[in-house]
Amino acid sequence: MAAQSLDQVINLCKRRGFIFPGSEIYGGLQGTYDYGPLGVELKNNMKRLWWRYNVYERDDMEGIDTSILMNHYVWKYSGHEDTFVDPMVDCKTCQGRFRADKLDECKCLKDPKKKPGECGGELTEPRPFNMMFKTQVGPVADPESFAYLRPETAQGIFVNFSNVLVSTNRKLPFGVAQIGKSFRNEITPRNFIFRVREFEQMEIEYFVMPGTDEEIHETFIQAHIDWWVNYIGLKRENIRQYEVPAGELAHYSKRTVDLMYKYPIGWEEIEGIANRTDFDLGSHSKEQEKLGITAKVIENHHSTEKLTYFDHQTNKHIVPFVIEPSAGVDRGVLAALCEAYTEETLEKGDTRIVLKLKPALAPIKVAVLPLKKNEPRIVEKAKNIKKSLIAKGEMRAVYDDTAAIGKLYRRQDEVGTPFCVTVDFQTLEDDTVTIRDRDTMQQERIAIADLYSYVIDRI
Amino acid sequence: MAAQSLDQVINLCKRRGFIFPGSEIYGGLQGTYDYGPLGVELKNNMKRLWWRYNVYERDDMEGIDTSILMNHYVWKYSGHEDTFVDPMVDCKTCQGRFRADKLDECKCLKDPKKKPGECGGELTEPRPFNMMFKTQVGPVADPESFAYLRPETAQGIFVNFSNVLVSTNRKLPFGVAQIGKSFRNEITPRNFIFRVREFEQMEIEYFVMPGTDEEIHETFIQAHIDWWVNYIGLKRENIRQYEVPAGELAHYSKRTVDLMYKYPIGWEEIEGIANRTDFDLGSHSKEQEKLGITAKVIENHHSTEKLTYFDHQTNKHIVPFVIEPSAGVDRGVLAALCEAYTEETLEKGDTRIVLKLKPALAPIKVAVLPLKKNEPRIVEKAKNIKKSLIAKGEMRAVYDDTAAIGKLYRRQDEVGTPFCVTVDFQTLEDDTVTIRDRDTMQQERIAIADLYSYVIDRI
Repeated sequence: MAAQSLDQVINLCKRRGFIFPGSEIYGGLQGTYDYGPLGVELKNNMKRLWWRYNVYERDDMEGIDTSILMNHYVWKYSGHEDTFVDPMVDCKTCQGRFRADKLDECKCLKDPKKKPGECGGELTEPRPFNMMFKTQVGPVADPESFAYLRPETAQGIFVNFSNVLVSTNRKLPFGVAQIGKSFRNEITPRNFIFRVREFEQMEIEYFVMPGTDEEIHETFIQAHIDWWVNYIGLKRENIRQYEVPAGELAHYSKRTVDLMYKYPIGWEEIEGIANRTDFDLGSHSKEQEKLGITAKVIENHHSTEKLTYFDHQTNKHIVPFVIEPSAGVDRGVLAALCEAYTEETLEKGDTRIVLKLKPALAPIKVAVLPLKKNEPRIVEKAKNIKKSLIAKGEMRAVYDDTAAIGKLYRRQDEVGTPFCVTVDFQTLEDDTVTIRDRDTMQQERIAIADLYSYVIDRI
Repeated sequence: MAAQSLDQVINLCKRRGFIFPGSEIYGGLQGTYDYGPLGVELKNNMKRLWWRYNVYERDDMEGIDTSILMNHYVWKYSGHEDTFVDPMVDCKTCQGRFRADKLDECKCLKDPKKKPGECGGELTEPRPFNMMFKTQVGPVADPESFAYLRPETAQGIFVNFSNVLVSTNRKLPFGVAQIGKSFRNEITPRNFIFRVREFEQMEIEYFVMPGTDEEIHETFIQAHIDWWVNYIGLKRENIRQYEVPAGELAHYSKRTVDLMYKYPIGWEEIEGIANRTDFDLGSHSKEQEKLGITAKVIENHHSTEKLTYFDHQTNKHIVPFVIEPSAGVDRGVLAALCEAYTEETLEKGDTRIVLKLKPALAPIKVAVLPLKKNEPRIVEKAKNIKKSLIAKGEMRAVYDDTAAIGKLYRRQDEVGTPFCVTVDFQTLEDDTVTIRDRDTMQQERIAIADLYSYVIDRI
C-alpha cells in the first residue's frame, strides 16, 4: 500500500538521507531541496532509466546538454518574456504576496490557519508576475548584459536544431532528449519537492513532418505511460490522462495531455505531453515570412538562422512540427517514493516500513552484512564480497556492521535495498551466503560464485 | 599523438556534434557552451567513471546533490562575498573591462591584435570585481530576498554536514562527493570550454581528524592522478603537480596542490586538491568560540547548527579538517579530447583523424554497419544486432547506413567509436560478423553470439 500522507515520505526522506531542505542551517531557502546520499542515487537511477528508454533503445533519438544561462533573446522569441507569468495579489494587511489562482493553497502571513482574504486582509487586484530569474552577465552593467536562468530545458534544444541536424545527418522524424536543471521563481512554492523554484526536467523535442504530428503525439503518450509503469513501478491505475482544455493551453500548444499521478495530495501533473506545432522553430528563425509558419510567432529581428529541414521528396524547406514529452525528475522521484512507501504489520505484531522500489531504481542494490562483527574472518569475507560485487559492475553495494542483523535488515528495508547478503560461520566453510529478499523477507542459501548473476538478473 | 592546437579540437567538436557555442543563433552568450549528441555521452561517461571510482569503489564515501540556489548567508560566511573577486581594470579609450592580472590574454576592443594598454588606451587602477551571479528570489524585492548562483559545489556539502552525519551514522574519516553545475561571472572567459561562466565540477569534501590531514591530503593527490591516467587515459607525463605558493593560496587553504595538464595552450589546472582545514565547518557553525577552531573565521550570527563530530575516544566534540579534491568536468572533457585527438598518415598516403578515447569514455561503443543498404536481409540483421546489444546492457550503439563502408569507418574513427561491426552476406549464412578495432583497424570475424561479451570485456 502506498503512502497515505506526504508527511510520511518527508519524514523518511529527512531521517534516512534522501532529501533535505536546502540551506537548512540558515533557515532554508524556500523552494530549494538537497538530495542526500540515498536521494542522489535514486534520482540518478531514474535519469538513467529515462535516458536508456528514450535515447539508447530508440533509433531516432539524440541527446544534448545545453547551458542554463542563455542569451535573453531566446526568451523574448520563445514568448516567455511576455507570457511566462502567474497572477499575483498583495495583501494590504499582512503584506504577503500570493498566487491569485491558488489562494486556497496559501496561508495568511499573520494567521496561518486562514487563507489570504479570509483573514480580513484586503487583497489587491491580480497583476502579472514573471517567473524567470534574471541575472547580470559580464562585468559591464549595460541594459543588454543580462540573462535569465532557463525556465525549461526545451529552448536549448530548439536553438541547437541546425547544429544537431548538420552534425548527425538525421532525417525526419527524429528527437532530441535532454535532462537538466530549470528554474522558476514560484510565488508560493509548496508540497515538498512537488512545486519548487529549482528543479530538474527530462524533456524530448521530437521533430516531425507537419500532418503526422497528431498520430505521433498519441504514440508518445502511450509510450511514456508505459515507462512510468514498467520502469518506475507506478501502478497504471494511479496514472490518468488529463486533456488540457483549449482555454488553458500554453501559448505554443495545439494540444496538451498531462499525465496525472495520484499523489497523497491528490491527482497532480507528473508529465506534460504537448504538440508545440511549428511555433518554436518558427519563432527562432530569421526570414520567417518565407517559411510558411502556421503558428502565430513574434517577428524575429535577431536570429541568424533558418531552423528548417530540407525535404528531399518535395525539394522544399519546411519547418517541422514538434511533439514534446516533458517530465519532472523531482516529481518522478516523489511519485516513486509515494508508490513504494509501505507500512506492514508482520506476523508477530511488529511493524516495518519498507520501500518497495523497483530494484533498478533502488539507491543501494546489495547490503553485505556480517553475522558477527567481532569475528575478523567473517568481516573480511563480507568486505571482500562487497568489493567483488562492485568490481564486476556499476552498482552501489554497502557493507554494514553497525547493529545486530535484525536491525540491519529493517534499515535496508526502509531505504528499499532489494537484497541483503549475510555472511556467517557456514560461509567460512563452504563459501555460501544467505540472500534475503526485501519484499518477501525469505532467505535463500547460495554460492558466493553465483551471487553477482543472481543480483544482476533481478535488477 | 595528441592535438597540436585547440582549434583542431574545437573544429572537430563543432562539426561532429560534441560541443557547440551556447545560444549561437543569437550571436552567443560569452562563456557558455552546449554539449551536443556526442559531447553529452562523453561528459556523462566521465562523470560516471568519477562517481564509480570515488563513491562506489570506496567504503568511506557518500554522494550528494545540492541546489545551485542557496541562502546568501552561505556565501557571507564561506568568505565568498568578501574575497571571491578578480582585479578588474577599465580602458578609458575602448571602454573594455579586463582582468588586471591576465592582461596578456586579453584583447583591446578596438584593435584585437593588441593587448589592453599596449594599444595606447589608458587603464584605470585595478579594483575588485565579485564573480558571483546574483538573482532576486521570490516575488518581494526586499534587500534580503536575493541569492547567488553557487560558484562552487563545495558549500552544499558543508552546510549539509550534520544531515549526512546523522542520516548515515558515519565515523571519521569519511567523504561526501558531488557533481554539479557552478557559475562564475568571469571578466574574460576564454580558451573554449577551459574558462567559462557556467561549468560543472566534481568535488569531494573529505572529513578527517585534525592531525591526520597532511597525510590524507597526499593520498588523494596520488589517487586522483591515478584516476586521470587509468580511467580517463591522460598520459602520466602530461600531468604535473603544482605546489601553490603560500602567497597565492585561497583564504581557506593550508596547502593546495594543483594538477596541471599539458593542454595545447600550455600547462593549466585540471584539478585542485586543497587542505581546507577546519575553516568551512568552523565558519558555518554557531557558538564558534566553544569549538576550538584553528582557522580564522568570520563571527557567525546566523547559523542554527554546530557542525561538529563527537569523538567517542576522547568524548569531545571536534571540528573535522577537510581535504578537497576539486576537478572540472569540462576541463576533463577538454583534456580527454586533446589527449585522444590523433591525425594519422596511413599506408596508402591517406590521412585519418582518430579519437583514441578509452573505450569506457567513448560516446558510442559500437556502430553496426550493413555492407549493403539495399539488401533488406542484411539491413534487418544489422538492426537486430544493434537492438540486442542495447538490450543486454546500458550502452550507446548505433546503426548507420548513410554511406559506403569505408566512409562509415572514418566517421566512427573520428568520434572515437572503439568497435565497428559489419554485417555482410556471410553473416546471413553463418551468423558471424566482422568486428573492426578503431586503433589498429584490424578486423576479426566472430560469431554474433559472442559479440556482446567481446565488447563488454574491452570496455
